[in-house]
Amino acid sequence: MFIETKKRSILKTLSWRILATATTITLVYIFIGDTSIALSVGGIEVFLKMFIYFFHERGWDKIKFGRREINPAVIWLTGYAKSGKKSIGLELQKLLLKKGYKTEFLDGHSIRELFPQTGFDEKAINRHIERVGYLAKKLEEQGIFVIASFISPYKVSRDAVRRLCNNYHEIHVNTPIEICEQRDDTGVYEKARRGEIEHFPGINSPYQAPETPELTIDISNTAPKTAAKQIFNTIANTI
Amino acid sequence: MFIETKKRSILKTLSWRILATATTITLVYIFIGDTSIALSVGGIEVFLKMFIYFFHERGWDKIKFGRREINPAVIWLTGYAKSGKKSIGLELQKLLLKKGYKTEFLDGHSIRELFPQTGFDEKAINRHIERVGYLAKKLEEQGIFVIASFISPYKVSRDAVRRLCNNYHEIHVNTPIEICEQRDDTGVYEKARRGEIEHFPGINSPYQAPETPELTIDISNTAPKTAAKQIFNTIANTI
Repeated sequence: MFIETKKRSILKTLSWRILATATTITLVYIFIGDTSIALSVGGIEVFLKMFIYFFHERGWDKIKFGRREINPAVIWLTGYAKSGKKSIGLELQKLLLKKGYKTEFLDGHSIRELFPQTGFDEKAINRHIERVGYLAKKLEEQGIFVIASFISPYKVSRDAVRRLCNNYHEIHVNTPIEICEQRDDTGVYEKARRGEIEHFPGINSPYQAPETPELTIDISNTAPKTAAKQIFNTIANTI
Repeated sequence: MFIETKKRSILKTLSWRILATATTITLVYIFIGDTSIALSVGGIEVFLKMFIYFFHERGWDKIKFGRREINPAVIWLTGYAKSGKKSIGLELQKLLLKKGYKTEFLDGHSIRELFPQTGFDEKAINRHIERVGYLAKKLEEQGIFVIASFISPYKVSRDAVRRLCNNYHEIHVNTPIEICEQRDDTGVYEKARRGEIEHFPGINSPYQAPETPELTIDISNTAPKTAAKQIFNTIANTI
């Protein structure tokens, strides 16, 4: 994944101009000009310089200088269920794709095919999150931006993912649990309160909020699109 | 991941030449030339055309035409233990990386972190291979070449991987089992013969050889480097 830098274009401009103008001056000198001669020069120039320009272009295509490789990022969204992680993540994905960056969105649903979560106690969750982290690392190594949307309630596994990845950004979607519960149209909070769902972070199991996240977002007063832009601003100078 | 095509360079050459020569002819016409005037023209041209060329370059950087996106492939190496799959796979990876293609090499060792194989009976193996296939598909979707080196003894799971992936190539590393056994310096064949390893393909469990693989390689008379080139020739017109 490459992007053309201004430095590259400036150098290319200089090298071409030296070639092309040396050719023009030599030709005009040989013809010792008047208007018709100048036009003849133009006529010859059209074909000769096209030939030179083409091989100049093909030569540059072999040169790496000024082709900047994008350094991708792993953007890890953590927060309560129904906190708005997914909406933000999908907006961020749209934004990154629009910029031409390859992006993978990972959440419980999208990775179920790869590794079904086998348990919901602390140990099982941490193992699951670490495997997602390992997948994120593999994708990041291949130049792909990874947006991961997981409650990921435990500090120990989030920190493990941070160590695995090269350019990790922890985004705390800090929507208060009361608002998450109000927003819940699937009834999972109700079920958790009735004890029908065990290990539900914030209800009957802990949620360890990040202490020093790269960014904190409270979606109750920030639209997903705005949040996505905030995240992009946070990662912009690292990519 | 983009590669500059010849079509793109030809079009770029044409568009630049129209701009540049029109500029030169107009200038020479205004000056009504002799030698010194031709040199003046050259002098002005140096600066003016550099300016035009630069914005011409930046403009082209925004145009997608002629930028060919590489269509990656999933290259699936199947064969007995010690048949030489890994050596071929690593040579192929070197070859693809040299061509500038992003490439991931997957084998039992490299994916252990993601999903440890939990069993070795037919069902467990098929489930494991299908998950590797799903990972390969995800990487392929992101423009990455995948080289997978797995005994993968069952047709049903290899076919499942074929259906998952977009550009799948099955390579049968057809080294005869006697030669695999001779090459075995880790004693796994001996252990399997003594019954200490169960479900060992070719010894106490079936190996269903591919019926219509994209390519068959017998490493007992083909060096890994040569085999890698054969594979590249097989995939070349699909990428």
